[in-house]
Order: sequence, then structure tokens, then C-alpha cells
Amino acid sequence: MLEQLRAIVGDKGLITDPGEMEPWITDWRQRRRGQALCVVSPATTAEVSAVVALCAAEGQPVFPVGGNTGLCFGAVPESDRQGKIGVVLSLRRLNRIRAVDQATGIATVDAGVVLGDLHEAAVRAGRQFPLHLGSEGSAQIGGLISTNAGGTGVVRYGPMRDLVAGLEIVLADGRVLCDLAGLRKDNTGYMLRHLFIGAEGTLGIITGAALRLHPQTPNTAHAWVSVVDPAAAVSLLTALQGRAGSYIQAFELVSASQFELVRRHEERVRIPFAEIPAWSLLIELGSEDATTALNGILEEVLGAALESGGIIDAIMAASEQQAADFWHVRHSVSEANKKEGIGIVHDVAVRTSDAAAFIAAADKVAAERFPQAVTQVVCHLGDGNVHYILMFQREFWNSLADEDAFALEVERAIHDAAAVFEGTFSAEHGVGRKLTQELERLADPLRYELMGRVKALFDPQNLMNPGVLLTAKAV
Amino acid sequence: MLEQLRAIVGDKGLITDPGEMEPWITDWRQRRRGQALCVVSPATTAEVSAVVALCAAEGQPVFPVGGNTGLCFGAVPESDRQGKIGVVLSLRRLNRIRAVDQATGIATVDAGVVLGDLHEAAVRAGRQFPLHLGSEGSAQIGGLISTNAGGTGVVRYGPMRDLVAGLEIVLADGRVLCDLAGLRKDNTGYMLRHLFIGAEGTLGIITGAALRLHPQTPNTAHAWVSVVDPAAAVSLLTALQGRAGSYIQAFELVSASQFELVRRHEERVRIPFAEIPAWSLLIELGSEDATTALNGILEEVLGAALESGGIIDAIMAASEQQAADFWHVRHSVSEANKKEGIGIVHDVAVRTSDAAAFIAAADKVAAERFPQAVTQVVCHLGDGNVHYILMFQREFWNSLADEDAFALEVERAIHDAAAVFEGTFSAEHGVGRKLTQELERLADPLRYELMGRVKALFDPQNLMNPGVLLTAKAV
Repeated sequence: MLEQLRAIVGDKGLITDPGEMEPWITDWRQRRRGQALCVVSPATTAEVSAVVALCAAEGQPVFPVGGNTGLCFGAVPESDRQGKIGVVLSLRRLNRIRAVDQATGIATVDAGVVLGDLHEAAVRAGRQFPLHLGSEGSAQIGGLISTNAGGTGVVRYGPMRDLVAGLEIVLADGRVLCDLAGLRKDNTGYMLRHLFIGAEGTLGIITGAALRLHPQTPNTAHAWVSVVDPAAAVSLLTALQGRAGSYIQAFELVSASQFELVRRHEERVRIPFAEIPAWSLLIELGSEDATTALNGILEEVLGAALESGGIIDAIMAASEQQAADFWHVRHSVSEANKKEGIGIVHDVAVRTSDAAAFIAAADKVAAERFPQAVTQVVCHLGDGNVHYILMFQREFWNSLADEDAFALEVERAIHDAAAVFEGTFSAEHGVGRKLTQELERLADPLRYELMGRVKALFDPQNLMNPGVLLTAKAV
Repeated sequence: MLEQLRAIVGDKGLITDPGEMEPWITDWRQRRRGQALCVVSPATTAEVSAVVALCAAEGQPVFPVGGNTGLCFGAVPESDRQGKIGVVLSLRRLNRIRAVDQATGIATVDAGVVLGDLHEAAVRAGRQFPLHLGSEGSAQIGGLISTNAGGTGVVRYGPMRDLVAGLEIVLADGRVLCDLAGLRKDNTGYMLRHLFIGAEGTLGIITGAALRLHPQTPNTAHAWVSVVDPAAAVSLLTALQGRAGSYIQAFELVSASQFELVRRHEERVRIPFAEIPAWSLLIELGSEDATTALNGILEEVLGAALESGGIIDAIMAASEQQAADFWHVRHSVSEANKKEGIGIVHDVAVRTSDAAAFIAAADKVAAERFPQAVTQVVCHLGDGNVHYILMFQREFWNSLADEDAFALEVERAIHDAAAVFEGTFSAEHGVGRKLTQELERLADPLRYELMGRVKALFDPQNLMNPGVLLTAKAV
């Protein structure tokens, strides 16, 4: 098997040394470790096809990996079959930007292209690729599509799904399904590509993509706003949507407890408020037109909300530097939380109109069942995505008999609170290996059954990233 | 069977009289006629479920119909099985707007709601539903989703697919798959809903939908522009995208031959040009913000194009009335063409960057092979959708031995010209019964095979709108 793989990808494309394989079989936070026969890195779609066909013939599991930046262990190679350890398939050598078509607004790229490199290529063409997240310096396009990545810009541009105009996929039998024409309109039957977006590598290997570019929006306005409560934040969002909805590029709600941790742990962050508000919002508007008075629009909407009592205070960014400082607060959340203690982060989404009620319900559950926790909210309110966090001090955590069981108990309680509002427990992070049991528990049984049948249709041997997304029982 | 159906839907929900059934078994242009055992009109999702379960048990085909406004005969009931005539299932009594959630920007509606009624409900909530097409007074939401309808607004808002946030579907066995939470972010596995969007009723019956609303854009600017050629139109689009891309609400290219027919047959239309240009563009920009100087932006971009020689003349709308007059020209195309003769209309889409080259290639094919035709172009250039039309005089047409065979020859020639550019022969109209052979001929064989397997997975008895989309051979 190894020699056959070497014949396909050459020496440069094969790692078999256990020490060298280590970073490929461990998730980046080093919380979970798998094992692999080898790491194979094809340099072309044809090589991916040959590798996958070989694995299919040998009944060998294939574990695809992009930048290994996921949060749900979807890229950790864990085989559930006796004696079938499997092959890690890295897309890193498939890293060409194949074409940028300015008139059509499409970039066609290999799956292994790093997001930051795509950002630069888009800017060189006078456009932008509007997906932004913390790991953009290492996250790869294929992984971002396979997990339907989100971020703060979803309110304007949608998640990765909305930015994909075509895919090239190596199917479980090695055949290549190519749909890279990049057409905006195509009504010739079932749109299969959407099955692979967010499938976390369980239906096939994405090797290329046609991606939508957007105009740049150099004109921006920013405000940090102190709001009475989450309901007032939703009212402000609704008003802003009516006045300038398509200009909203971020609408981020942060609780005082979260803001406080940033102040405590991130000394270089400039806090815009003298006193940290109970709830605050970071708002960004943007336009490609320099003459549109975005600050004026924002002041007008905030002024009306101040009068009606929904908001308490608002600070507008007076310069690009101040806008960057505003974002620095928001972007410091993860680091601050890491320093504080053990945070159980949830990736819930509900309808925006239910966000305030969900937060209240989660607070109630947390206070009753987990009084040891301080709760924090970081919420992409514009798209209803609430990262509800229970923060535990290390001392308490270390006193637990079984941390994993406790964490699961916390997660289930918050997921149940979301389910009351028809909310999801996985808004933008995916399911991976972390949440397969939760998916089985919470998914509509009919939908879950159909997912199993779709999996069986595209991957009858269950060799594509087995153990991710669906439990062994479901496939 | 009839009595069992009557027990489900009552007398009001069942038509068996041949005369009354006539409009339900004939397409609205009366070009194609099927036959049916009866027309059944359930009033609830539960009734649809019971009807479909009964048909599944009896092995009876189900032919869903919405507003019967399609152009590809997808709603004509033609059974391909001996002795199995089948049941027409009308969604017209499922016509409730279930909820409008302003904060989330979601309207949840029955599948039988007429598009125009949804427009009104959105406006009452201070929002808009941005899908517009000629038949909006009778087209129903379920049909519009099943055909992934397009229109002139796709350049800004995307096709119907981009406006669907959730579906309720009765599967082929009668079970109800419900996904109406209307979440903007949801990463819990395979997004099955996209299979049903554009499936033309062949995988299940859509009974409800959660649809995205957008802010209203009361501030608009309009221009009719005379351009040198299609390539110059693409250049102008590219420049406008950079300057104000997300404001573009329409970018419609019309050939002189098409404009001429409007002038000839539609006397009440105000023609903005003294002399009809070789190529002309109708451009609309829109914003929810009244202070954005859209006319100024448009004048600036058009001024630069005038200087560089790409455009010859531009007329800005000075009033709402003039803007309406501008659109009247564009909307008069279909009527004018009907009066002129026999037009073979193609629904091609290519990458915008290839639109000019495709039009030239189609012109060449038309001139060489069909010199009897005058060719016309009506093109949603912003999304690459070219309605390329060959217009034949009635005299010539009536002299043909076999009109259908000739029409097919024309269509194949133009579709082949599009295929050279990886273009599609069905951009927004769908496949229906009209283009099943073309889909089989032109689709990537692997994709076509997978479509057949998906069909078999969801509709193993081939009872859901059989004969539409896929040929009998494929299922």
C-alpha cells in the first residue's frame, strides 16, 4: 500500500515517519490524537483521484485535512475499524490560484489554497473575498467549504455556502465530479454541490472551488454601543436593517462579563467605555461608495434609539485607527478566555427574534444547574449565532472526577435550551467528531435517516472521514 | 382510489369532471396537454401527506402544479406508465402566509401562496421580497422554488435558491421533512433542502417555505445606455461593480433587433432613443439610503465610459415616471415577440466574461445554419443569462414539414454554442418535459448518473412528477 501510494505522489508527497506524522494526527489544540498509516499529499487532482481509488480498492479509510484549524476534531484520523488505520490526505500541495475572473466575479482555486492568499489575490483584482476568521493565515479553502465556515461577515455576505459557485470533488470511488463553470444561474437539475458543502469530508474530497468575489467596501463606519439588554439590541438591529440593512457588515453583541475578561487579560486593548456596559454592540457598516454618509446614517439610527431609551451610549470611531481598536476588543475574546479558565463554548444559532429569549433561558439553566460558572455571551446577532460560554475556574475544574462527562452535561443543557427555540447546536463550527452524539440526539429523526442514506449512496464503504458527522450506527 | 382521495380532501378538494380538469392538464400557453385521473387540492400539509402516501401505496404517479406558469411543461401531467394515468396535485388551497418575522427577516408561507401576495406581505412588514417576474400575479411559491426561478433581480439578490431559508417537504412515501426554523447559520450536516430547490417536483412536494426578506430600496437610479457592443457592456459592468457593485439591481442588455420589435408592435411604449442603438443597456441601481447619490455615481461611471469610447450615449431617468417608462420597454419584449412571429427562445447562461464571445458564436451559427431567422438578444448580463432568440416569420414556419424537429435542430445548435463556454442551456426556466433529452445529451455523464441515483433514493417508485427532468432511461 505504501509503495503504491509512493508511486502516485512521489517521495515528496508521502510521510511515514511517526515523528513527522505527529502534527497531522493531532488537532491543533492538542486535545485529541488519532493514528494513521501515513500522510499523503497529492499535488494534483489526478493524484488525489488515484489515491482515493487505491484506498477504495484496499478498503482503507481516507482522512482529509486542510489547515487543521477546526474546533470539532473533524481532521483527527480515528478509524473505527479493526486493523484499518487509514491514510491522512493533506491538500496542502494543491495550492494554486487557478484563475481570477474579474468581470464574472469568480476566483477558481485549488482546495489547499490558504484563505489569506485568496484575500490577497482578490484585492489584486480590485475585489474582496469577504470570509474572515481568526485562522485565516492557515485555514484552507477546502476545509472552509467542508465545514461551511462562518465568521463575523455572515450578516452581509452569508456563510461559505453562499460564496461557493462551483466545486471539483473526488468521489469515494476516485471519480472526479467537476462543476467549476462558475455560472450564477444554472437550472439543470439537482444541485449536488450543496451536499458536499458542510459535509466535513464524509462524501468526497473537495479538490477545487469556484468562489464568488464581492466589491471592496473602503467606506466604513464603526460604533461601540451600550444597550440596555439583548432585546434592545435586536430592536436596534431591526431599525438599522430598515434604514441601511445591506450596509451592515458586523453586528456583534458582547456581555459585560465577556468585556470584563478582555479588560482583565489583554492589557494592550483600548476599552472604549469608561465603565463596561451590561451589554454592548460592535457595529460596522460598509459601502463601496465613498460619498455615502455611513457615519451620518449610523448616528441617525443610534440617535433615535437613544431617545427611545433602548440604548444608553454610543461611541463612533473617528478614525481608521480607532476602528481597528474597536475590532481589537472583539478579536481579543478568545485569548482572554483562554487565560481566565476553562470555558465551555457553545455554537448555538436561533432566529434573531429569539436571541434575547434564548440568552435568558440559557442564563436560567446555567444559574440553576451550574452555579460555579460565570456566563459570557459573544453573539453574531445579525445572523442569530450566540456563542454562549460557561467559564469555570481551573481549581473547580481540576476537582471534577470526570471533566469530559461534566462538559457534556453542560453542553447538553445549553443545546436543549436552544432546541426549545428550534435553534441549532452547531451554527458555524460544524459537528466533526465532537458533536456526533449530539447530532444523533437532537436532529429530526427523518432528516438524520436521510443523511445516513445519502452517506451510503456517495460512500457505500464508509471510507470517507469515517466517524465524523454521523455515528457508526447511522451509516 | 377517487373515494379514498375524497375522504382525505373532501368534495371541495377534488375535481373529476373532464371539462373542469382541462386547465389543469394543459400548460398555460396550450402547447402541451396531458391527462389525469383527477385534480386533488389538499388544504393542509397533513392532507398532502395523506394523498401522497395513498398514491405511493397504489403506485399512482403524482403531478404537482402551482400557478401553471412554467415555460418547460413541468406541470403537464403525462404518465409514461401503461394504465397509470396519475393524479394532479394542486397546491392552490395551501395559501396561508404563516408568519412574517421582521427582526429575523423571514416570511414563512404555504407553497400555494401567490408571489404577488408575498410581495404585499413583505411590504406591510417594511421589507421586500426581491424576486420579480412577469407571472408574479399567478406564480406560486412552491413552483418558484421547484424551478429555482430567476428574473431581473438575480444580479443583486440571487435566484430563488438564495432566498430560501427553509422548506417543508412531503416525501414520496408521505412523510413530512420539516426544516422551517429559518436559521441563517446551521452546520449540522448535509443540507438536504438544496436538493429539492430546482428539482421540479421530482423528489417530493414542497408544502411550505421560510423565505428571506430584504430591506426596501426606495432610492433608485435608472439609465438606458447605448453601447458599442456586448464586450463594451461587460467592461461597463466591471467598472460599475468596482464603484457600486452591491447597488446594481438590473443590468439588462438588448440588441437593436429586439428593441426594433418593441417599437414596431408596442405603440404605447416610449422609446428613449431617437435612433435605436446597436446595443443598449437598462441599468438600475438601488439603495435603502435616500442620501446616497445614485444618479451621481451612475453619471460618473457612464461619463468615464463615454470618454473611453465604450458607450455612445446614456439617458438617465429624471423621474419615477420615466424610470417606469424605461422598464416598460424591457417588459414589452415578450408581447412584441409574440406579435412578430415564431421565436425560438434560448435560456443560456455563461460566465459574464464570456457573454460577448458566446453571442458572437451564436450569431455565427445562426447566420450559417438558419439564415431565415432574425436573431435577437435579451440578456441579464449581470448574471450571464443570455436569452438568445431566433425569430422566424410565420410563412416560413408554416412551410416546414416538421416544426418540432426544426425547433429542436435550432435549440441544439445554440446549446452547443453555449457548451463550448461551459455554459448551460437552462439558466432560469428549468428543464421540465421540454429539455429532458438535452439534459441527458449535455450533462456531465457522472453528474447525470448521480442525479439518477439521488432520484432513486428519494423516489424509488418513480412516482413524483415522472418524466420531468430525467428521462425514463435515467431513473
